[in-house]
Amino acid sequence: MIVVMKKDASAQEIAAVVERVKQDGYEPHLSEGNERTIIGLVGESPTPLREDNYSSMSGVDRAMRVSVPYKLTSREYHPHDTMVALNGSKAGASKVLVIAGPCSVESREQTIEIACAVKEAGATALRGGAYKPRTSPYSFQGHGEEGLKWLAEARERTGLPIVTEVMEPGLVEMVSEYADVLQVGARNMQNFPLLNAVGASQMTVLLKRGMAATMEDLLMSAEYILAQGDSKVMLCERGIRTFEKYTRNTFDINAIPVLKARTHLPVIADPSHAVGYSEFVTPIALAAIAAGADGLIIEVHPDPAHALSDGRQSLNYDGFKQMMAAVSQVAQAVGRSA
Amino acid sequence: MIVVMKKDASAQEIAAVVERVKQDGYEPHLSEGNERTIIGLVGESPTPLREDNYSSMSGVDRAMRVSVPYKLTSREYHPHDTMVALNGSKAGASKVLVIAGPCSVESREQTIEIACAVKEAGATALRGGAYKPRTSPYSFQGHGEEGLKWLAEARERTGLPIVTEVMEPGLVEMVSEYADVLQVGARNMQNFPLLNAVGASQMTVLLKRGMAATMEDLLMSAEYILAQGDSKVMLCERGIRTFEKYTRNTFDINAIPVLKARTHLPVIADPSHAVGYSEFVTPIALAAIAAGADGLIIEVHPDPAHALSDGRQSLNYDGFKQMMAAVSQVAQAVGRSA
Amino acid sequence: MIVVMKKDASAQEIAAVVERVKQDGYEPHLSEGNERTIIGLVGESPTPLREDNYSSMSGVDRAMRVSVPYKLTSREYHPHDTMVALNGSKAGASKVLVIAGPCSVESREQTIEIACAVKEAGATALRGGAYKPRTSPYSFQGHGEEGLKWLAEARERTGLPIVTEVMEPGLVEMVSEYADVLQVGARNMQNFPLLNAVGASQMTVLLKRGMAATMEDLLMSAEYILAQGDSKVMLCERGIRTFEKYTRNTFDINAIPVLKARTHLPVIADPSHAVGYSEFVTPIALAAIAAGADGLIIEVHPDPAHALSDGRQSLNYDGFKQMMAAVSQVAQAVGRSA
Amino acid sequence: MIVVMKKDASAQEIAAVVERVKQDGYEPHLSEGNERTIIGLVGESPTPLREDNYSSMSGVDRAMRVSVPYKLTSREYHPHDTMVALNGSKAGASKVLVIAGPCSVESREQTIEIACAVKEAGATALRGGAYKPRTSPYSFQGHGEEGLKWLAEARERTGLPIVTEVMEPGLVEMVSEYADVLQVGARNMQNFPLLNAVGASQMTVLLKRGMAATMEDLLMSAEYILAQGDSKVMLCERGIRTFEKYTRNTFDINAIPVLKARTHLPVIADPSHAVGYSEFVTPIALAAIAAGADGLIIEVHPDPAHALSDGRQSLNYDGFKQMMAAVSQVAQAVGRSA
Repeated sequence: MIVVMKKDASAQEIAAVVERVKQDGYEPHLSEGNERTIIGLVGESPTPLREDNYSSMSGVDRAMRVSVPYKLTSREYHPHDTMVALNGSKAGASKVLVIAGPCSVESREQTIEIACAVKEAGATALRGGAYKPRTSPYSFQGHGEEGLKWLAEARERTGLPIVTEVMEPGLVEMVSEYADVLQVGARNMQNFPLLNAVGASQMTVLLKRGMAATMEDLLMSAEYILAQGDSKVMLCERGIRTFEKYTRNTFDINAIPVLKARTHLPVIADPSHAVGYSEFVTPIALAAIAAGADGLIIEVHPDPAHALSDGRQSLNYDGFKQMMAAVSQVAQAVGRSA
Repeated sequence: MIVVMKKDASAQEIAAVVERVKQDGYEPHLSEGNERTIIGLVGESPTPLREDNYSSMSGVDRAMRVSVPYKLTSREYHPHDTMVALNGSKAGASKVLVIAGPCSVESREQTIEIACAVKEAGATALRGGAYKPRTSPYSFQGHGEEGLKWLAEARERTGLPIVTEVMEPGLVEMVSEYADVLQVGARNMQNFPLLNAVGASQMTVLLKRGMAATMEDLLMSAEYILAQGDSKVMLCERGIRTFEKYTRNTFDINAIPVLKARTHLPVIADPSHAVGYSEFVTPIALAAIAAGADGLIIEVHPDPAHALSDGRQSLNYDGFKQMMAAVSQVAQAVGRSA
Repeated sequence: MIVVMKKDASAQEIAAVVERVKQDGYEPHLSEGNERTIIGLVGESPTPLREDNYSSMSGVDRAMRVSVPYKLTSREYHPHDTMVALNGSKAGASKVLVIAGPCSVESREQTIEIACAVKEAGATALRGGAYKPRTSPYSFQGHGEEGLKWLAEARERTGLPIVTEVMEPGLVEMVSEYADVLQVGARNMQNFPLLNAVGASQMTVLLKRGMAATMEDLLMSAEYILAQGDSKVMLCERGIRTFEKYTRNTFDINAIPVLKARTHLPVIADPSHAVGYSEFVTPIALAAIAAGADGLIIEVHPDPAHALSDGRQSLNYDGFKQMMAAVSQVAQAVGRSA
Repeated sequence: MIVVMKKDASAQEIAAVVERVKQDGYEPHLSEGNERTIIGLVGESPTPLREDNYSSMSGVDRAMRVSVPYKLTSREYHPHDTMVALNGSKAGASKVLVIAGPCSVESREQTIEIACAVKEAGATALRGGAYKPRTSPYSFQGHGEEGLKWLAEARERTGLPIVTEVMEPGLVEMVSEYADVLQVGARNMQNFPLLNAVGASQMTVLLKRGMAATMEDLLMSAEYILAQGDSKVMLCERGIRTFEKYTRNTFDINAIPVLKARTHLPVIADPSHAVGYSEFVTPIALAAIAAGADGLIIEVHPDPAHALSDGRQSLNYDGFKQMMAAVSQVAQAVGRSA
């Protein structure tokens, strides 16, 4: 069982619940977020658990049993779709959102140019990496804060909100000054201090599934953020690592409907990383929408052959426009819009 | 380089090519199918390979270099889509084909009933297992030839062609007397004597990808069948084995467009096995069509809860009808029909 | 529960058990092997299952509950180690057995030469493929029955028993005329007609784990053979398929002690396929012995660089001798001999 | 090619090299560690690369081509084994090191007790987690700095150096005040800011392989640390994630000899996480030593059934003593000691 305290619950009220849990023979586990405290009851006891005993206590918002290990993230806890606001639209609503832009921001001019191009083609938000997680220390690591400034300038010009990756807790505050959505990358999906930090920031978060993460692992990582009182989380399927060699990753299309059934959070698909070759990005994007994805995140570059990173999987402007047209058709076929 | 002999090439003409290959310093590898002989040139030699030297020889149909290890199966060798005829339709053409029916045939009456139901809902062909590969020797192994007779009777009633699995070379002839399409199951994808036998039968073949098979492995297995002179082969993506536990397999949606780019053969999707739970079959079916699949193979059972095998992933009649309606919408959205 | 009938149980006695099962409300599943019949009780019933009710019936050898899905293969059913006789030694006993020889037999002379070399170095048996499962139809497929004759001749010269692969049920009888041990390869681990055929032959069997097979799958495949009354089965761990690219497969060393705990059958390791590069075969062989393997199967070739198959993973004679010396040391360190 | 600058190279000398790289038509990539700067030459140019042109420049320590993407970590760059000092012993030398202790430190008394127990049994160092990466936010997260103090006290009592995990860059300095070896966990193997921070600290580092990391990924992550001028790095194989369900992970035993061939760094094995069940830890530990591992890291707990984390895979004191005796035997069998 979990006991969710009210936002303004006092230390005394929390202590009273903790005391009651101990009296009932369970172990209280406190998760103290910025906004509210959640108390988990673990262990075994002869005393049967009754929600009423706790929900009636002062300062308690809700007490409930959740059969799955992720609690606040589950549909059991929160049956209705959570809508995450983005640029006047809502991830999780009928309209399919499209986040587009370069893998990494390379220059001020190019960033602005791409922003204008993807906006014209119908994108909802601009993606772009200023801090890049690279396998090799000798690869281009991103332009850092300067890159964030270019992104902010692109937002001023186009109105597109900015989705950009943050890689360490110490930079969450700074990156949040420029970004609208903090992206937690696949390699950091189980970087728990980072999850706590982005959750504490109360920013909107795009949480990417790790390469070897089960869907349950992904939901548990989202739980870290929700436990901080931040439920503006979009999950992102971006492909898992398998034995297949013709593609960069294996896009787990099953994850789209299965996650949607298990959690109330919106689910976004990243076909660019999932398949790794631009000529296959559109079919995979269409598949994701057909399977029920709430949005897409797509790498777009004016000249993919000369991109500083991930060029092989980036669409050029024409490719992106064509993808948007096709996405619109498929979205309508499944009762949505794009 | 490969040298494809004419169907009526004489033993002498074949011997002459073999001799020439040796003179040029390469090793000849003969693949003698029922219908034609293919000679592969392997090894290294100072003599450069020239197609003309061979294509001009008596009895030779075609000589060509193919850069990939699968030859007849590749788009390099055969750039245009191969259409596989099925019930007046063609797998690989604009219309999306749907093969539907029970995992295993359970009784004469039920088989006929299901055939009528899936036909009414728009299916192109009837699937049903009479020989079942089961992990446990104590599980139901199928009704064997009696089951095939029920399928044949269902075909008489409905006109639907029969797709059914054959598990051993010694039964290919008998199963072919009842079946229209021989299915080679995932566990037998690299059962090479079986591939040779189904190829030699010149029957239409549905070849399923193995659980740990790369796309290249699948194409190489198709090559065994094509090397026997049988190009009526449909490939089938049915999910691969990964670490994910919420689904039965991981459907490799990437394989749909990637295989279509690499081979001229039609590609079918099996959402039932790919996800393993009936409530997710339709979204995965829609995803497959959106990604470019030429058809679907779907498990349908009147009472999934009491099916002798795979009930958890079978659609009931209503579910199948709803899936067909949704498939039709998505097919149109990508410029096809269903 | 399973009911194992005596070898000489009459049809009437079997029918009586089946009748009793039905009366108790369960479904009887017959597994009729060459040597004995096993009746599995499946389904649910209000009547509690009692071993005594069945074990006291005429013609019944044993009735017992087994909690795991593999029954005859489990330690629950048969707690003591099964010893499989091989060349005067016993797989499963204290001495570590070594099966060595070429991937495929290439010529009469070479086969005899290798047999003499591996015997001198201490091998227990000779391996060699006459029927080769090859990914490509254009690769060397083995010398067939002629190759088996060479192996038989090598046995005459050296006294080493022959371990060789059989790939189809129709050839089990013929291959058994030459072989001492039938190998079922990784690609055929779930070729159930083949498992039934090798079980029915009552030959000694070396059953290799499939590339994507769980340990449970392997034990279930062994169950097919044991259900035919043939318990002379050696299991073989030869590496599974993963994302790792520096090696051919990933050797699942965990499988050695875990299988030994779950089954009474001997467990053999195949370091050659497991790692795929000759320079790493010895360390992996030593690891397998240290972990408790009952034997090794090793590819040896006089001139690996020119082998017709798998040269990259074959030891030459010197390498094999050095491996044997090292194996002997490690075997002693874990209380065994080699 | 990479150009390694001397430790005391001036900014001017570095700039000169950068200038030369540009003149030659390549792109210079600077990796500025705490101790030295490395300049990588990337891209293509008509000017052939010559080591001499760079190694003769002022401030340059060494210029060399390395064919693999990891440079300082490779045996090409540094052919001899790197020895990492630990408690008077050296990881990478003949003696096999054993790091042992609880998964997480649970109390002052228990920490000291375990330290005494593992020391008596022959351990080289004490492991123990104060900051625990847990899948669930509601699981025990470790005692933090208080736990580090208990570890430091245990070191005072026993002389055993402390190996403990650090999870975020901001805590590297604080953790380094208590720890002798900083552990980077599997989930953080590609937490690049953390790798940079531990490298900059110049501490000894135990770097664990990620669950979906290839060996190359692991070597590239080590490269981040070495690029900071810190070569006191031990690699740790702890099992990868596969489809197998009978064990917690799949221990990639192949990685032991393959890594040893590719890098000069010592390689440690973690059988506890690799197999996940205490009854199989010893066989896997022996396998690792037989395959050439330079050491082991083992979870030990006085009462595994009541451990706050990972109890199922922890050895008790008796189990650890027996493992140490067996390890000693196998170490000697492969020409080492323990």
